[in-house]
Amino acid sequence: MFEKHIYANRRAQLKKSLGSGILLFLGNEESPMNYKDNAYHFRQDSTFLYYFGIKEPALAAVIDLDGDETILFGDEMSIDDIVWMGRQKTLTEKASDAAIERVLPAKELHQYISSYITKKQKVHYLPPYRAENKTKISSWFGLSVSEISNRASIDLIKAVVAQRSVKSAEEIVQLDLAASLSADMHQVVMQAARPGMYEREIVAKIHQAAMASGGQLAYPAILTVHGQILHNHYYGNQLQEGQMVLNDSGLETELGYAGDLTRTFPVGRQFTPVQKDIYEIVLQAYTDAKDLLAPGIRYLDVHLTACRTLTQGLKDIGLMRGTVEDAVNAGAHAMFFQCGTGHMMGLDVHDMEDLGEQYVGYTDQLIKNTTQFGLKSLRLGKELQPGYVLTVEPGIYIIPELIDQWKADNRFKEYINYERLEQFREFTGIRIEDDFLITENNSRMLGKHLSLTVSEIETIRSSV
Amino acid sequence: MFEKHIYANRRAQLKKSLGSGILLFLGNEESPMNYKDNAYHFRQDSTFLYYFGIKEPALAAVIDLDGDETILFGDEMSIDDIVWMGRQKTLTEKASDAAIERVLPAKELHQYISSYITKKQKVHYLPPYRAENKTKISSWFGLSVSEISNRASIDLIKAVVAQRSVKSAEEIVQLDLAASLSADMHQVVMQAARPGMYEREIVAKIHQAAMASGGQLAYPAILTVHGQILHNHYYGNQLQEGQMVLNDSGLETELGYAGDLTRTFPVGRQFTPVQKDIYEIVLQAYTDAKDLLAPGIRYLDVHLTACRTLTQGLKDIGLMRGTVEDAVNAGAHAMFFQCGTGHMMGLDVHDMEDLGEQYVGYTDQLIKNTTQFGLKSLRLGKELQPGYVLTVEPGIYIIPELIDQWKADNRFKEYINYERLEQFREFTGIRIEDDFLITENNSRMLGKHLSLTVSEIETIRSSV
Repeated sequence: MFEKHIYANRRAQLKKSLGSGILLFLGNEESPMNYKDNAYHFRQDSTFLYYFGIKEPALAAVIDLDGDETILFGDEMSIDDIVWMGRQKTLTEKASDAAIERVLPAKELHQYISSYITKKQKVHYLPPYRAENKTKISSWFGLSVSEISNRASIDLIKAVVAQRSVKSAEEIVQLDLAASLSADMHQVVMQAARPGMYEREIVAKIHQAAMASGGQLAYPAILTVHGQILHNHYYGNQLQEGQMVLNDSGLETELGYAGDLTRTFPVGRQFTPVQKDIYEIVLQAYTDAKDLLAPGIRYLDVHLTACRTLTQGLKDIGLMRGTVEDAVNAGAHAMFFQCGTGHMMGLDVHDMEDLGEQYVGYTDQLIKNTTQFGLKSLRLGKELQPGYVLTVEPGIYIIPELIDQWKADNRFKEYINYERLEQFREFTGIRIEDDFLITENNSRMLGKHLSLTVSEIETIRSSV
Repeated sequence: MFEKHIYANRRAQLKKSLGSGILLFLGNEESPMNYKDNAYHFRQDSTFLYYFGIKEPALAAVIDLDGDETILFGDEMSIDDIVWMGRQKTLTEKASDAAIERVLPAKELHQYISSYITKKQKVHYLPPYRAENKTKISSWFGLSVSEISNRASIDLIKAVVAQRSVKSAEEIVQLDLAASLSADMHQVVMQAARPGMYEREIVAKIHQAAMASGGQLAYPAILTVHGQILHNHYYGNQLQEGQMVLNDSGLETELGYAGDLTRTFPVGRQFTPVQKDIYEIVLQAYTDAKDLLAPGIRYLDVHLTACRTLTQGLKDIGLMRGTVEDAVNAGAHAMFFQCGTGHMMGLDVHDMEDLGEQYVGYTDQLIKNTTQFGLKSLRLGKELQPGYVLTVEPGIYIIPELIDQWKADNRFKEYINYERLEQFREFTGIRIEDDFLITENNSRMLGKHLSLTVSEIETIRSSV
C-alpha cells in the first residue's frame, strides 16, 4: 500500500467534486473457477484500490459526504479462518493503514444503505462489472440486473475518471516500474524463443517472470505466430523458421499498476525482406504517433496520424492506392489496422474501462458515436493532459477472412490493391507498443528501453 | 475432447437414471478480473465438460428426457469476433464433435425453458456456484438468488454424482497423466529450491510447468515455509536454512482432469532431527491409510486410522498422552491435524464440490452432521467403490493461535502435553499427499512415483 495520507487525500479530493449523500464502493469477491472454494487469484477492484488500497475480498466502503466519515464494511477472521488462511492484520489495522476511521460488519451494509434510500438521500455507485456485485446492487436498490448500470451515478463516474486519469508522482513510479519489469520480461522472451518451441513454452516464461516479480500478468498474454488475431489466447502452435512471434504482455505491480508492451520478432535470426518492409512501416507509424504526444493534442489526431503513416507505407509497397487522406477518412486502412492506436493505462491495462469508454476516452464535446470499422475500436479520442498515461500501439494485420469479405463486397477497391494483397494472405501481423506519460510540455516513455528497431531486434536474435 | 461416442454414451446413461422433463446444464461464462473484457483464463464447468466436452464460454445444453434430444444453446462467431479472436470451428462443428444433434441461438434458451415451466414439466438443474449462472436461474425460474440452491434437482445431483464418481478407462488415463505431470513438476521444485530464494520464485516454476504442459494449475499452488497454514496463498517469504518447504500443487490436463500432490522437504540438504521424527509420523499415517484403500472400506475409517497413527506417533515423541483410541474419539488429535485425510478427485480437484459434500462424500445412511473440529472438515466418509479416485494426505500442523486458544480453555489437557508443545510452537507443518484409484480388489497410486521417504528426499536435496 501507499502511505495512508495518500488515500485520505484522494478521498478528500473526491468529496470536493460531489454534493451530498453517500458514495458506495464495492470491493471484489473471490471469483470461483469450478466450485465456490476453488477461486482464481484475487484481483481487487481498481477504484477500490485507488481510494482504499486494501487488497482483500468481500469488502465495501462508504464515504459519507455530509457526515465527513469513511466506513469500511467487512468481517474479522474467525479462528477457523486463521487455521486455514493464517493470521493476518485485523481488518481494523488494515483500515487504519488506509486512514479509514470506522469499521462495521459486512452484514450492516444493506441496512446502512437502506436508511439513506428511505431518507431519499442520494446513494452514488459505479457500474458493477462482476455478477456478484450486480446481484448485491440489484437486491439493495430493488432494481433488475438490466437496470443497474443505467442507475449508476454519472457524477461519481465523472469525478472518479477526472481524478484517476491524472497520475500522481507515486503512481508514475509504479507505472515506470510496471513498464520496466514488463520490458525485462519481453527481453527474456525475445532471447529465449527458438524454432521448434511451442507458443505455450514461451508463455510459461512470461508467467514465470510475472510470478517471480511478485505481481501478476496485467492481462492474459497474447503470444502467437498468428499476430493478426488481435486477442489471441491460443498457445498451441509450434514456432517455425520464417514466422514472426508477436508478444503482447505486461506485468502488474504488487500495488496493481499495469505495464502493456508489444514486440514482434522473427522466429529465426532475421526478418524476411517483406517482414522487414512492413515492420518499418509500423515503426514509422509508432514514431510519428509518439512524437505528437503532448498536452492539448487530441488522441484522435494521434490515431489518424498513425493511420496515415500506415496507409502511406502500404501505398509505397503497393497494397494500397489513391490519396492517403481520402483512404483514411473513408476507413479503407482498417483492412490492415482494425483497431485503435492506444488507450489510457493505470490500475487497469485499459484504464477505467468498467466506468465507460465515453467518460474515459471522450468528452461531452467529443462524443463517441462512429460506427466506422476500425475507428469504432478507438478507446481514446480526447485532448491529452499532463499526467495521462497511455499506450501507442499501431500495427498491420492481414486477416484472410476480412479480405474475403471486403473483396466479395468490392469494398474500397479504389484504395486497396486486392490482387497484390492475395500474395500477403498468410503474412500474419506486426504490432509495436510502448507506454507513455504526458508531461507538462511534452511526453516521455515509461520504463526502460526495450529493443525496438529491426537492427536491435536482429542483434538479439543473432544468437539463435 | 474425447471421441464423440463417449459423450453420447454418458448422456444416454444419465437419461436412464431420470424420469421425464428436461435436464438443464449451464456452461460457465468468462469471469472478469478488473473489467468485463479483461477476464481470467476460462474454466468450463466440470459437469458441462463431462457430458458435452466443449470448452467455450457462454454455452448451455438441454437434454430432453421425453423427446430424446440434446440441444446446445450458443452463438456462432461474427466477423468482428473472427477479427479479434481468430477463426475457430463453428459451434455446429463443435456440437457434432460431442454428438449433439441440434444447435439453437443462446437467446432462445429462456423461451425454451419457459415453455416447460408453463407446461408444469420438470426442469432439472444443478446448484449454480458462479454468480452469472445464479442470475440466469433466478430470472428464468422467478426465484430469489437465495432460493436457487434449494430448488436444484436432488435427483439430477444424485445421478450425476453416481456417474462421475466412477471413473471410466479414458478418465483414468487422464488422471494418471495429471498425476505424472504433477509429479514431474514437484521433482523440479524439489531440486530447484535454495536458501535465500523467495517462495514466489518457486511458484513461478510451478506456473511455468503448468503452462508448458498445455494445461493450467488445478488449484492455486500452496508453496510455503509456513506449512501449518492449510490454504496459504502468500508467497513473499524468503527460504531459510533449517526451514521446510511445503508444496501442495497439481496440474490440470487439457481435458480438465486434476492432479493433487503434496511434498514437504528441507530448505537445506537435510531435515533437522525433529523435522525427521515428525516426517516419519506423517509418512506412517500416509502408509497406513493408503494400505487400507479397497472397495467396501469406508473412507471415514481410513481417516480415523490415519488419525490414530498420527496420535500414536505424537505420543511417542511426548506431544500427546493417554489412550490413542479415546484421544481420537474425543477429537484431541485435531490440535495437530485439523482437516480430513482426503477427498474425491476428477474433473475437479475436490471432485463435484459444487454438487454438495453430503451427496459426493456421504450417503443417505451416513449423514454428515458432526460439528467436531477436524472431523467436520472430512469431505469423504462413505464406502469406496471400484473406479473412485481420491487423495490420501495426512499431515501434522502446529498452529500457535490454536495452541493459545485451546490452552486457555484447558481443552483436552488429558491428551495434549501443552508444556512440551510450547517448544514446538514454531515447527510449522508437514503434509504428504498422493492420488489413488480404487481398483476391483484393491487400489493403486496414480501417476509416477515421486520422492517420498526421508532418504529419497535428502538424496535429491544433497546437491543443494
